[in-house]
Amino acid sequence: MSGFVSFVSSGPGDPDLLTVKAVKRLAEADVVLYDDLSSGPILDLARAGADLISVGKRAGRPSAKQDHVNQLLVDHALTGARVVRLKSGDAGIFGRLEEETTTLDAAGVPYEVIPGVTSASAAAAAAGIPLTRRLTARRVQFLTGADVTGGLPEDLNWAALADPTATTVIYMGKRTFPAMAAELIARGLSPDTPAMLAHGVSTAAQDLERFTIATLSAHLQETASQTPALIFYGPLATGRDEAGQ
Amino acid sequence: MSGFVSFVSSGPGDPDLLTVKAVKRLAEADVVLYDDLSSGPILDLARAGADLISVGKRAGRPSAKQDHVNQLLVDHALTGARVVRLKSGDAGIFGRLEEETTTLDAAGVPYEVIPGVTSASAAAAAAGIPLTRRLTARRVQFLTGADVTGGLPEDLNWAALADPTATTVIYMGKRTFPAMAAELIARGLSPDTPAMLAHGVSTAAQDLERFTIATLSAHLQETASQTPALIFYGPLATGRDEAGQ
Repeated sequence: MSGFVSFVSSGPGDPDLLTVKAVKRLAEADVVLYDDLSSGPILDLARAGADLISVGKRAGRPSAKQDHVNQLLVDHALTGARVVRLKSGDAGIFGRLEEETTTLDAAGVPYEVIPGVTSASAAAAAAGIPLTRRLTARRVQFLTGADVTGGLPEDLNWAALADPTATTVIYMGKRTFPAMAAELIARGLSPDTPAMLAHGVSTAAQDLERFTIATLSAHLQETASQTPALIFYGPLATGRDEAGQ
Repeated sequence: MSGFVSFVSSGPGDPDLLTVKAVKRLAEADVVLYDDLSSGPILDLARAGADLISVGKRAGRPSAKQDHVNQLLVDHALTGARVVRLKSGDAGIFGRLEEETTTLDAAGVPYEVIPGVTSASAAAAAAGIPLTRRLTARRVQFLTGADVTGGLPEDLNWAALADPTATTVIYMGKRTFPAMAAELIARGLSPDTPAMLAHGVSTAAQDLERFTIATLSAHLQETASQTPALIFYGPLATGRDEAGQ
């Protein structure tokens, strides 16, 4: 009686953007481990009586250590429980999924991963723009804009990022974007490259703002907001209005 | 009475990987325009009495022309119908979404885009691997492996693609992968870079095969299968078995 862990991708925030499978797993769960990002209305879908356990970041408190999350997953599964581990967006994209699956493998706990809608897809859909276009945007790339220290990663592939024919989406990149934009422009990417800043994707707080990479850089230098956001840039970042703004 | 078009991402194939919102739109639809790829069990979710219209490729017949699809969307919407346009995977990723939204904009037909689970996320989830990893795979990129002629696109960004620290997913790239792999290896990417070939993701026909980029290239040169597949390569492509196979 080893229990079972479902890594459930909870999508960008709107409960209607969960998959049918995710809803089913929540409805059957004995225990739900969640980060604050994926809480709220989505937790209302959990079975009445399920234990809801927050393991995410909280204002003014350090994150639960990953080791602690891993141990909770194993401990609950070993009681025989049906455990749901909610992961915001798509679990496989910047979800630190592997750190938890490795622990379950070592403990012999079976699990499944339920894919979901990543925030980039949801933001693009809300803006009415595609992430790719035949001929002019055949490649789309997602990256994190910050390393473990919160700074710009040192080993970025600038040839990949300064490509005017790709759509680039930066997760967790608001603080480092001005430095990134300066480097992109130094490497030849036009400062007028369209950009979009997306907050609260698919929630009531959704805000999609259009810029160029130069004006977005200036905007972010002037604002101190730490709320999570996605940054898009590339030929499609503002849809058909190619010049931005 | 202008009607309304919902571009509904149908995900990789399993109806349980539709979003709740996608299911709602299908249940309310008057007309559903679908490509064959997204047909079958997903169409069973359409409202009884909805008109189901295939506009996709069929064996031995040319695709419906895009102009024809555009005209059908407009014509049905202008009757006041609730039109669902099914797009496999995520509509914004290699879905040629813009060609249809541009037509609706011109005709003054309102629409929405409902994002979905892209096949890359579903294949990674099925394989139990993430698409990103802190420090060693901070960037994930999706591209098409074929241009309009079916050949390898001429303007690929090889510096982006030969990056050993990115996860790369190629859509529609089976035929051109041997040429791509040769170029990647010539540019310094290790022939032992893990690779995965994914067929029938999330369906009963799902088959995930593990290779290196060199052995996958050889495999594809020996096989004539034209069934759609995804190709993954990069440090995570075979999960924790870094050496491939």
